Amino acid sequence: MYTKQNLTLLTDFYEITMANGYFEAGMRDEKAYFDMFFRRVPDGGGFAIMAGVEQMIEYFKNLKFDDEDIEFLRSKNCFSEGFLEYLRDFKFSCDVWAVPEGTPIFPGEPIVTVHGPLIQAQFVETMILLLINHQSLIATKANRIVRAAKGRGVMEFGTRRAHGSAAAILGARAAYIAGCVGTACAIVDREDDIPALGTMAHSWVQSFDDEYEAFKKYAEIYPDNCTLLVDTYNVLNSGVPNAIRVFKEMKPSSMGIRIDSGDISYLTKKARKMLDDAGFEDCKIVISNSLDEYLIEDMLAQGACIDSFGVGERLITAKSEPVFGGVYKLAAVEKDGVIIPKMKISENVEKITNPGAKKVYRLYDRETDRAMADVIALMDEEIPEEDGYTIFDPDNVWKKKNLKDFYAKELLVQIFKEGECVYKSPDIKEIKAYCAEQVEHLWEEVRRFENPQTYYVDLSTKLWEMKRGILEQHT
Amino acid sequence: MYTKQNLTLLTDFYEITMANGYFEAGMRDEKAYFDMFFRRVPDGGGFAIMAGVEQMIEYFKNLKFDDEDIEFLRSKNCFSEGFLEYLRDFKFSCDVWAVPEGTPIFPGEPIVTVHGPLIQAQFVETMILLLINHQSLIATKANRIVRAAKGRGVMEFGTRRAHGSAAAILGARAAYIAGCVGTACAIVDREDDIPALGTMAHSWVQSFDDEYEAFKKYAEIYPDNCTLLVDTYNVLNSGVPNAIRVFKEMKPSSMGIRIDSGDISYLTKKARKMLDDAGFEDCKIVISNSLDEYLIEDMLAQGACIDSFGVGERLITAKSEPVFGGVYKLAAVEKDGVIIPKMKISENVEKITNPGAKKVYRLYDRETDRAMADVIALMDEEIPEEDGYTIFDPDNVWKKKNLKDFYAKELLVQIFKEGECVYKSPDIKEIKAYCAEQVEHLWEEVRRFENPQTYYVDLSTKLWEMKRGILEQHT
Repeated sequence: MYTKQNLTLLTDFYEITMANGYFEAGMRDEKAYFDMFFRRVPDGGGFAIMAGVEQMIEYFKNLKFDDEDIEFLRSKNCFSEGFLEYLRDFKFSCDVWAVPEGTPIFPGEPIVTVHGPLIQAQFVETMILLLINHQSLIATKANRIVRAAKGRGVMEFGTRRAHGSAAAILGARAAYIAGCVGTACAIVDREDDIPALGTMAHSWVQSFDDEYEAFKKYAEIYPDNCTLLVDTYNVLNSGVPNAIRVFKEMKPSSMGIRIDSGDISYLTKKARKMLDDAGFEDCKIVISNSLDEYLIEDMLAQGACIDSFGVGERLITAKSEPVFGGVYKLAAVEKDGVIIPKMKISENVEKITNPGAKKVYRLYDRETDRAMADVIALMDEEIPEEDGYTIFDPDNVWKKKNLKDFYAKELLVQIFKEGECVYKSPDIKEIKAYCAEQVEHLWEEVRRFENPQTYYVDLSTKLWEMKRGILEQHT
Repeated sequence: MYTKQNLTLLTDFYEITMANGYFEAGMRDEKAYFDMFFRRVPDGGGFAIMAGVEQMIEYFKNLKFDDEDIEFLRSKNCFSEGFLEYLRDFKFSCDVWAVPEGTPIFPGEPIVTVHGPLIQAQFVETMILLLINHQSLIATKANRIVRAAKGRGVMEFGTRRAHGSAAAILGARAAYIAGCVGTACAIVDREDDIPALGTMAHSWVQSFDDEYEAFKKYAEIYPDNCTLLVDTYNVLNSGVPNAIRVFKEMKPSSMGIRIDSGDISYLTKKARKMLDDAGFEDCKIVISNSLDEYLIEDMLAQGACIDSFGVGERLITAKSEPVFGGVYKLAAVEKDGVIIPKMKISENVEKITNPGAKKVYRLYDRETDRAMADVIALMDEEIPEEDGYTIFDPDNVWKKKNLKDFYAKELLVQIFKEGECVYKSPDIKEIKAYCAEQVEHLWEEVRRFENPQTYYVDLSTKLWEMKRGILEQHT
């Protein structure tokens, strides 16, 4: 429902000025390759999680210029009538490759590649970045938080602090892919089949004459999901005793308490003991108070008695680092069928791009099934699994590595072929399971929060030679 | 266009469980007052800027449960048929007051107040917070950046790093209200009449055989808006000389260069001299490279020669502090026409709320027209302007202040009366002008970035007495 809007003009204006420029410059039939990649993992992490591909596919499928769009562009008085006619007949005809959602991804490697008419491949830049940057940001953050919780459930609770409706809805989706067990946001359950849960706010408790009455009424109405918020007045003197009294009297089939403020480690230990002493060992303790991966690790290290977490603003905004800096760069132009590699040659070394039409392999160790390295190669290259294979660190080219006993998998899959979708997005639960499994293929050293090992993303010999050749021409 | 979705279920699930709970508990005709307020200004600033009211109004107007919503809720097997019937006939019937968009706002004061059936006033919590938190966050950040630019234009450039489509569109809107001169996002221009601008990316330059040819072609097509991106290869050795050559040959009517990387202070001073020496004193210099208020202040302090700024990710995500922590709390219930004040009494002192049905006055000094203090009063109170007026600091109640020679204005305006909209949102340009004017009414000491003076938000005697009475009852 919420993806069926005409968002064609949700784009940077320069995409349109450039498109008209290419059209007017007689370059409408030229083709190009563009890559999306990112330069660093947020929060100093060892890897990111790819997300947003399904929404990108929807975007490509719906890409057309309607009358309202054309009228608006005409009113700007800077586009030719010929170009506006071209837009009226616009039909997306690119090839697109993308890394499947839920896959761990690393800096520098293409995660989306678009090949097609220069005008089109340029035009889609803004929305590709918007969709993939946003969801990959949230998936990456959520995966950190889920890993910190060490098997305890993490619920996404951030709707009210999300940056608008799409951030709430698609943020909850990305969080679920990355390992959250559900969300507080009802519409996401209806649209994406992601379980939404929620019981009461402080206002429920305050609306009654006293806390006991509020709890009792709730237990009467919701005997199957009776999680009581115990910190409206005083957790240990009022909330937990009232909850225990109500559990005894009403005998709900599913019991929980939620604590949303105060010293969580202390309160949960005390509350656990009170509940256990009253015979409610099955009662779950849920925590929700400006949590993130560090606070969760810290609470668990202190022995806090917690069954699950509700995580809000710090997940849904990726508060510690709210930008996933994916970029989209021209890699090659194609003239008369010949691919001419292009690269940005910056004084800023880390801004130099990788030229050419490329693909990416992930190499796994045969013995452990752990991912050893990703290799960026040219599109016509195969990786020989039989013999040793040498890869180059693109930043420190004296660093070569010879790999043996591996198997290779291509990372990017084709999702559009000449404008037609050739890919069916997996079910969201499949994506979630795939994500959990793929993260397991990473070494523990790459997964840790502090100073993780840098995973190898290297270039094939052929790509490295091409890159060196272009650099040498320009210096 | 993009606000016309059915977002009724974009809400925390607990709003629905509580609504069904109130219904089943026989409280469907009880009424309540809820306030939205926030606790601290992001980035340690002295004030925030209110935004998002227009979208909140749209939300209230469109609030209804359609068949799809009802079916979904029925499928959860926890809501009564009576309640689902009630939702089918749901008609929003609350009174709503809000601070107009563009107004400076301060911690602790109500910025939205909702009065009406408890079920309804509770239900709308999530979307009120989502909409007002998001846009107020971005407006507050944008206003800081705009003030740092000291009169130079600031363009919003962040679409590709926004948290989804609504964040891009409504973030650009909030940024414009707060003082940005425009946006890079085309759809915002079409929908909200906010000027969108943009010329070229590095890929334009790379698509041609050389930079000169790329610039020349652009000047030929866009003689009226010829801003050339000069840092694809080398700003001073290649970009600026090629731009000057093209300006000389093509004589565009509007000239500019944009620099997106490197040492901005150094490059802009050198580029300015090269342009001036070539006779292009009118050529504008535009800067865009991960900017924020601190970097802008710093560049200008170094004497960088900049005419305008394009600000992306750090504005559209409010990167330094991406959460506007607005909350929505029960302030009173109404039983048989009697208002019973309610407050959350937390062990955490700053989480104690202000009870009762309230309104807010802003008091201005008669001589300077500067805002002196905001006073939270009970809804039936008037502020006498003639005599001195005593206000209480709610956190430090021994601090009283006697104010004289002021005039008072009510801060909240009624926007809904028994479910009918009674307010017409001003035109976006009016909101923008109003915002600029209202910020001018603040003392310089409140506006500064570092350690601003804390603006007084105090309680009336009557409200303070009520609050003290409730606190004393509970301790």
